[in-house]
Amino acid sequence: MFESAEIGHKIDKASYDKEVPALREALLDAQYNLLESAEFSVVILIAGVDGAGKGDTLNLINEWMDPRHIRTRAVGEPTDEERQRPPMWRFWRVLPPKGKIGVFSGCWYWDPIMGRVYGKIKNAELDQCMEHNVRFEKMLTDENVLVLKFWLHLSKEKQKARLKALEKAPATRWRVTDSDWEHHKLYDKLARVAERALRQTSTAVAPWFIVEGSDARYRGLTVGRMILEAIRKRLALKEGKGRRIHAPPLLPAIDNLNLLRTLDLSLKLDKRTYERELAKCQGRINMLTRDPRFKQVSMVLVFEGNDAAGKGGSIRRITRALDARQYQVVPIAAPTEEERAQPYLWRFWRQVPPPGAVLIFDRSWYGRVLVERVEGLAAQAEWMRAYGEINDFEEQLVRNNTVVLKFWLAISKEEQQKRFEERQKTGYKRYKITPEDWRNREKWDAYELAVCDMVDRTSTEIADWTLVEANDKYYARIKVLKTACDRLESALARL
Amino acid sequence: MFESAEIGHKIDKASYDKEVPALREALLDAQYNLLESAEFSVVILIAGVDGAGKGDTLNLINEWMDPRHIRTRAVGEPTDEERQRPPMWRFWRVLPPKGKIGVFSGCWYWDPIMGRVYGKIKNAELDQCMEHNVRFEKMLTDENVLVLKFWLHLSKEKQKARLKALEKAPATRWRVTDSDWEHHKLYDKLARVAERALRQTSTAVAPWFIVEGSDARYRGLTVGRMILEAIRKRLALKEGKGRRIHAPPLLPAIDNLNLLRTLDLSLKLDKRTYERELAKCQGRINMLTRDPRFKQVSMVLVFEGNDAAGKGGSIRRITRALDARQYQVVPIAAPTEEERAQPYLWRFWRQVPPPGAVLIFDRSWYGRVLVERVEGLAAQAEWMRAYGEINDFEEQLVRNNTVVLKFWLAISKEEQQKRFEERQKTGYKRYKITPEDWRNREKWDAYELAVCDMVDRTSTEIADWTLVEANDKYYARIKVLKTACDRLESALARL
Repeated sequence: MFESAEIGHKIDKASYDKEVPALREALLDAQYNLLESAEFSVVILIAGVDGAGKGDTLNLINEWMDPRHIRTRAVGEPTDEERQRPPMWRFWRVLPPKGKIGVFSGCWYWDPIMGRVYGKIKNAELDQCMEHNVRFEKMLTDENVLVLKFWLHLSKEKQKARLKALEKAPATRWRVTDSDWEHHKLYDKLARVAERALRQTSTAVAPWFIVEGSDARYRGLTVGRMILEAIRKRLALKEGKGRRIHAPPLLPAIDNLNLLRTLDLSLKLDKRTYERELAKCQGRINMLTRDPRFKQVSMVLVFEGNDAAGKGGSIRRITRALDARQYQVVPIAAPTEEERAQPYLWRFWRQVPPPGAVLIFDRSWYGRVLVERVEGLAAQAEWMRAYGEINDFEEQLVRNNTVVLKFWLAISKEEQQKRFEERQKTGYKRYKITPEDWRNREKWDAYELAVCDMVDRTSTEIADWTLVEANDKYYARIKVLKTACDRLESALARL
Repeated sequence: MFESAEIGHKIDKASYDKEVPALREALLDAQYNLLESAEFSVVILIAGVDGAGKGDTLNLINEWMDPRHIRTRAVGEPTDEERQRPPMWRFWRVLPPKGKIGVFSGCWYWDPIMGRVYGKIKNAELDQCMEHNVRFEKMLTDENVLVLKFWLHLSKEKQKARLKALEKAPATRWRVTDSDWEHHKLYDKLARVAERALRQTSTAVAPWFIVEGSDARYRGLTVGRMILEAIRKRLALKEGKGRRIHAPPLLPAIDNLNLLRTLDLSLKLDKRTYERELAKCQGRINMLTRDPRFKQVSMVLVFEGNDAAGKGGSIRRITRALDARQYQVVPIAAPTEEERAQPYLWRFWRQVPPPGAVLIFDRSWYGRVLVERVEGLAAQAEWMRAYGEINDFEEQLVRNNTVVLKFWLAISKEEQQKRFEERQKTGYKRYKITPEDWRNREKWDAYELAVCDMVDRTSTEIADWTLVEANDKYYARIKVLKTACDRLESALARL
């Protein structure tokens, strides 16, 4: 894999000096066209062996382009806020918005590769990490991000010669540390692991470019030209968001039976039972969230459901049992300007809670496959791939000790009509009914289909959906609370 | 000060049950009117002695209003990311946007008050902290934030009785900890310190409300009604942003002499001297930022100047000497939607760097007193107070070991004309010239006046302005670099 990067590529000074001014001008032009179009962002990864010029390349990119619109990040020790979240959180928080360029050193490859080199993880785990990287980058490119990955290579001999040369000169001696020599000894191992990692993660949408790093001029020009061509080509595409896919349409089952229609919406509780159960459940969840073990986990509750199905009421029955300092309710409305300039899931990633917290979503990332699907706000290509992206997201939460619970509150069309009319009459609740609610109602069947697809495609063993029969509010609230208690209890027991 | 809060206020259950439903409905109404108007945010502080019901009050506010639009924060141990920034950073990052309510427990009062109670700080330091709080809250209220501060009080006897009662019942015994009894022993001390703190920070715009906390119903209703009235009253104001102040206008000196006109814009360097000095300075700043002591400080460089004065060029001469992983250039453009929903300085607070980083602002918070003043985008009341707010902000940076350097790059009107014309000709630089630049030029005198006022009012002993004679680019770049090196060097030497 590294053969072509050990043949001694070189550019003489005269050719270099001749090409650079035009290249810089073109790069600046491309950067400004990107900024003006604000249609996509560019993520550039710089990885490679020590001494192959990673740092110099980062600096060169910043020198040749306008550093005001570049965000450069080096992978470092995560901060404690980062350690408390899923590993990818720290990359999500620094993704460049549309129109801008993010340059990352090492990033989501470095830890697993070095972990394997030092024998801290096995090949199976390395492969798993690489598979996650592929999926992450696929999501980025699907979200219109241009992903460019450079691996700077240096042969073992060249690396040794470089370290020796640095050590010899008094001005640079201090730059050579013990860990440089240690890495040099591990050269063969790193090359093997890197080859494995690169092979698995060089995809059609985000391929690796291996660049020989021994000659600074060759390396710089190569990386510079590739960035230029990639940005130019993408700018020329002008594709817009509605990219077509050739996927079969999702249709209702031909016998007209679906999951929602199998629910027994006549389930109910009488007031006395409700009040007794409510007090019991609220006491239980209160104790569970005060349990010292709760400091090690977090809880994410997702509420989706028909309009007027009682999401708000169910949420309040939970929050009342909790300490206000522990929970946060996040109502999902239209994304802000900063959120629209990022991949779809970015606005949910920024909410990911630390351990010891309860985060309640009143509507959620499932808007993508519900309202956005039904109203045509997202193209089929977008909402179809959202199922997989959402599963990946939730898997990362669960792996990080988050209890993820998702509730669909289902009511019948008749019950909804009744509640809409009631709400329009009473003052207290009037803020909850809008003309949009009436419009949504007209699309009842389309929503039903979308909900069933959503449950089928995102109810996984790590984060399944709880369907809640909600024609009777008492029954629904208790089912929600009980489910939450049971799940949290068993999560704590597993610690 | 606490006399009226020890007289045994009480509300019987019947009156309470009668009032609560209407109060809740009114609170929800007010909350939704606030949300719809999105004209201001509400910051509610809940502080007080142990056992006076701080936690219960937080919960009650969340129960009575819609918790989806409330953000509740308890002061806790700062995270390491927070510890690396000025103390107020952690509050800035959780301020509620316009239309929403933030409820804070303890917050910016708790640490200094408890610090004084435990004798860790002296009265002088406590007073200083309180003075900062006054200034911070003044800034908030000036920025249209409604600030409500509640101190929940309990007499010493009542506190003791409460702890005894909790200890007696098996179900609540575990809630009484040693630290509760320790705090009880410190009661008199806390009362004295709190009285001092409250006295100093009860201002016309953000007064304290002292509420007797022994009776939960009295406490709840009192706080609830006060919040309701405060929000209602503010909503009724409908004042808009252009609040008038009766301040004398700022006029140019009658002899027409000003600071900028005293600059010797003929200062220049020949190319050879420039190149020698450039190499020397870049080497110096490179070594300084690699110095191990640099990990303890951070550096904020602010670049302001006439259009085409060479800000970008000066910035690049610095960044080229730095490691791209260390610095970040922040170009200041129009604020985003999320930024517009916050106090003016919020978008700069969110950028505050950790130690070891260099943050370079290409234009900055000074836009408030420059372009916003001249173009009439901010009312005089707003830009007049900005001088003080900015000084406070920079003081907090400096106290946190940040080297703050501010450069004004000055060119003559003739030189600007020449550069504009040049830029329109060359391709490479064309992106830098806009019709707005030509328009700004017409307001040359107004800008000149604004710049002189800015320097006079914000060049302080902690963060002074460096005026850079920039008709000659070589001279300007070297002056900037040398100043940065000297300042950083002496900052490191002081460590």
